Amino acid sequence: MLEALKQQVLEANLDLPKHGLVTFTWGNVSGIDRESGLFVIKPSGVPYEELKAEDMVVVDLEGRVVEGDLRPSSDTPTHMVLYRSFPEIGGVVHTHSPWGTSWAQAGRALPACGTTHADYFYGEIPVTRPMTKVEIEGAYELETGNVIVERFHELGLDPLEVPGILVHAHAPFVWGKDAHNAVHNAVVLEEVAKITARMLQLNPETPPMDQSLLDRHFLRKHGVNAYYGQK
Amino acid sequence: MLEALKQQVLEANLDLPKHGLVTFTWGNVSGIDRESGLFVIKPSGVPYEELKAEDMVVVDLEGRVVEGDLRPSSDTPTHMVLYRSFPEIGGVVHTHSPWGTSWAQAGRALPACGTTHADYFYGEIPVTRPMTKVEIEGAYELETGNVIVERFHELGLDPLEVPGILVHAHAPFVWGKDAHNAVHNAVVLEEVAKITARMLQLNPETPPMDQSLLDRHFLRKHGVNAYYGQK
Amino acid sequence: MLEALKQQVLEANLDLPKHGLVTFTWGNVSGIDRESGLFVIKPSGVPYEELKAEDMVVVDLEGRVVEGDLRPSSDTPTHMVLYRSFPEIGGVVHTHSPWGTSWAQAGRALPACGTTHADYFYGEIPVTRPMTKVEIEGAYELETGNVIVERFHELGLDPLEVPGILVHAHAPFVWGKDAHNAVHNAVVLEEVAKITARMLQLNPETPPMDQSLLDRHFLRKHGVNAYYGQK
Amino acid sequence: MLEALKQQVLEANLDLPKHGLVTFTWGNVSGIDRESGLFVIKPSGVPYEELKAEDMVVVDLEGRVVEGDLRPSSDTPTHMVLYRSFPEIGGVVHTHSPWGTSWAQAGRALPACGTTHADYFYGEIPVTRPMTKVEIEGAYELETGNVIVERFHELGLDPLEVPGILVHAHAPFVWGKDAHNAVHNAVVLEEVAKITARMLQLNPETPPMDQSLLDRHFLRKHGVNAYYGQK
Repeated sequence: MLEALKQQVLEANLDLPKHGLVTFTWGNVSGIDRESGLFVIKPSGVPYEELKAEDMVVVDLEGRVVEGDLRPSSDTPTHMVLYRSFPEIGGVVHTHSPWGTSWAQAGRALPACGTTHADYFYGEIPVTRPMTKVEIEGAYELETGNVIVERFHELGLDPLEVPGILVHAHAPFVWGKDAHNAVHNAVVLEEVAKITARMLQLNPETPPMDQSLLDRHFLRKHGVNAYYGQK
Repeated sequence: MLEALKQQVLEANLDLPKHGLVTFTWGNVSGIDRESGLFVIKPSGVPYEELKAEDMVVVDLEGRVVEGDLRPSSDTPTHMVLYRSFPEIGGVVHTHSPWGTSWAQAGRALPACGTTHADYFYGEIPVTRPMTKVEIEGAYELETGNVIVERFHELGLDPLEVPGILVHAHAPFVWGKDAHNAVHNAVVLEEVAKITARMLQLNPETPPMDQSLLDRHFLRKHGVNAYYGQK
Repeated sequence: MLEALKQQVLEANLDLPKHGLVTFTWGNVSGIDRESGLFVIKPSGVPYEELKAEDMVVVDLEGRVVEGDLRPSSDTPTHMVLYRSFPEIGGVVHTHSPWGTSWAQAGRALPACGTTHADYFYGEIPVTRPMTKVEIEGAYELETGNVIVERFHELGLDPLEVPGILVHAHAPFVWGKDAHNAVHNAVVLEEVAKITARMLQLNPETPPMDQSLLDRHFLRKHGVNAYYGQK
Repeated sequence: MLEALKQQVLEANLDLPKHGLVTFTWGNVSGIDRESGLFVIKPSGVPYEELKAEDMVVVDLEGRVVEGDLRPSSDTPTHMVLYRSFPEIGGVVHTHSPWGTSWAQAGRALPACGTTHADYFYGEIPVTRPMTKVEIEGAYELETGNVIVERFHELGLDPLEVPGILVHAHAPFVWGKDAHNAVHNAVVLEEVAKITARMLQLNPETPPMDQSLLDRHFLRKHGVNAYYGQK
C-alpha cells in the first residue's frame, strides 16, 4: 500500500540527519496521498540508521493507523491537522534544528531580511502564540496543529508561500508540495535562522527587506513567471 | 570480571568523540554494577582511538582499584561520590563539551526554555557554587562530587529527573540509568546549552517555559504514562 | 569550444560545496576567455553532484548564449557586467555563504581588522547601496552588476586589490584572476566575515587595522615585491 | 640530516588541517634540535596535501637555510626569535585559527576562566602591543618575535607555563616541548578561545577563575606532582 510514497517518505526522513537537522530521533517527515486521503509518517523513536520503508506507518485524516506494525510519530496529530487545514501541501516535517529552535524558544518571528529568505519564504516566518494550559494538558499534539493554523489564518498567509512556522517554546514545523520539498524548506529555514541571527548581532536595527526585492526573489523561483532553474 | 559492563563502558566512551563532545582525552564515562557495588571507568589520559575493553578499570565504592593495569580517570572520586549519593543512577559521564563548558564558566544555571530541554531535563540544569580554597586544595575530585550532591539536596532534585549539572568554572557532569543513557543525556545537555545560549542573544529576556509544557514534554517521554517511542 | 576553461569552471564550481560555501545550488562560478570575449558559467539550478563539464554554458559579453543546451545561471547578467567593467578579472563567483550573507543583510561593510584580511583584501570589503524599486523591477541581475561597479568607482578601488563586495540584503560577489582564484577569495571572505563578526562581540569598538600593517601583509603576498610562497 | 625531526615536523604540520586550525596554507609548524641548534620548518605556501618530509627546510638560529630546496615559511624569523629567547621550548606553531584570531584582532588577552584553560595555560594568554610603523616596515617577522618576547618579559612569564600568545591584529603563536606538543597547545588555545568568547556572551562580567583552582588544575597535569595520565 502506497509503496512509492513510503519510499519517498523514508528518503526524506533520512535526509534529516544528512543535512544536520536532527540529533538522535528528534525529527519526523510525512507525505500524503491526496487521492486516498492517507498519509505516511515515520514511526516514533526509531533511529534513522535502522529505518526501512516498510516501517513507515499509514494514517488516515482522522489519525487512525491504517497500516503498519509500529506506532506512528507522537507528532502525528499535528501533521494531520496541517494536512486537513492546508489542502495544497503534500509533505510535513518537524525537527528541532538548532537555529530554528533558538528562534522558537525566543518567541520571535524570523523576519525576511535577505534574498536567501526571499527565495523560499514570501515574508516573515511567523511564530505561534504560547499554548494555553488547557491546550497543553488536552490533546496537545492536535492543539499544536491548531495554533499553527490559527496563526496562518490571522495573518492571511498562503501555506505554500510561507511554508513553515516556529512553534513557541518548541521548534519549527515546515511543509511543502511533497515530503522532499518539505525537507528542502526545513534546510532553508535553518540556514536563514542562522544567517539572520548573526545579522542581528552585526546590526540589531536591520529593517525587513524591501518589498520589491522580496517580490522579485520569491517570484523568480515560484509562480508562472519563474525563471530560475531549467524549466 | 564484569566483561559486559566493560564493553558497554568502552562503547559509551567511544561515543564521546563520535558526538563531538570531547577534544583529545577530555572526557570519561563510567558504569556501575549495583549488585557487586563495583564500577568500571576509563583509564586516565588514554586516547580514545587506543582504548580497549580490557583497559577499563574496575573500582569499588571506596575508590579502590579492584582490577586493571592502568590508573583510573583522575575524576574517579567524583564518579564515586555520585554513585554513592544517587543510588538510582547507573552511569556517569564528564566532558568539557564546549557549549556546556561556556555555561559552567559563566556560572549560570541553564534554564528550561523549550521542549528540547523538557524532553530530557525536568527543569533548570543547576550550577554548583564555587568550590572553596580548602576543598580545592584538599581531596579536590571528591569534593567536586560533594558540591554536586550538596546542590541537588538544596534544590530537592531527583537525579533521574535532572540528570546533570554544571560544575562552576569547570564543565558538565551528566548521568543516567546506565553508561549509554548518561552519554545520551550529555549530548542533549550540549545541544540545549547551544540552543539556549543563542536564544538569549535573540531575546535576553526569555522567561522559563510554562510549567504545564515542561510537564507535558518530560512526562510524554518518562514515567508510567510515557507515550513516545515503541513501548 | 573552450574545453579547458569549461573544465576549470566545473572544478571551481565543485569547490564551492567542498569549502562549505553553498547549500543546495546557491552559488555559481564563471571564468572568461579574454581573447574571444566569451565566458563559461554554471547552468541554472543544477545540483553540484550532477554537474559535468559539457553542461557549462558559453555566453558572450552581451549576455547571449553561444553554446550549451542548458539555461545559464540566472545571475549571468551580473557576471557579464563585472567582466565588462573590470577588464583585469578572469573569474567571478557568487554564493550565499552564511557569514558573508549575514554582513550583506546587515548592510555593513567588512572592515580590515587583521592580517588574515590584509593578506587578500587591500582594505575594507564594501557593501553596495540598497537597490531602487526601479532597478529591482527592471533588469534586476544586470542592475546588481551596475550597483557593484558604481560602488567600486565611488571608492576608486582596484578590483584585484579588493576582489569582492557584499550586495546589500543579498550576499557576496567575489572575483579573481581566474575561476579558481575567485573561489579562493570567496573562501577568504567567508573566513574573515566569521572572524571579524566574532571580534566585534569581543570588542565592539575595534578600530580598523594600522595602514602600515595592511600594506605589509597585502604586499607580502601581492605585487612585484611579494615574498610569500615559492616564487 | 635531522630525518626524524623532519618527519615529526611534517606530521605536526599535517595535524593542523586535521584539527581544523588552518584554511589553505595559513599555518606552519617547526621543531628544533637543540644540540645542533638547527630547526626544521614548513616551506612557504605549499599545500598540506602535497607536503613531504623532504620538503621541510632546515634553518639555523641566524635564520640561514642550511638544507632544503624550497623557501622556508615567511614566518621563519618569528620562529627563530622564539627559539633564541625561550631555550626551554622545542616546537613552535603559527595559525590563523578562527577563534584565536578573533581575540587577537580584538586586542584582548584571553582570561583564564575555567579548568579547560587551566589544564594547559597557567593564567591569562597575553596579547602583544600593536607593532609600530617602524617595526612593521622593517624586519617585520623578526620584530613580531621581538614583541612576543617583550610581552613575556614584561609579565615575567615562563614560556612552558603559558605556551602561547595572541599577536595583536594578527593571530596566535603557540609553542611547546616539541612540535607535537606545540600543535596540541594550539588546539587547546582555539578551544578555550571559543568557550570563553561564548562565556562572555552569557556573562560579560565573569571574573578570572580562582587562583587555587588554576593552581590545582595546572599542577595536576604539569610539574613534579602531576597525577593525570599513566605516569
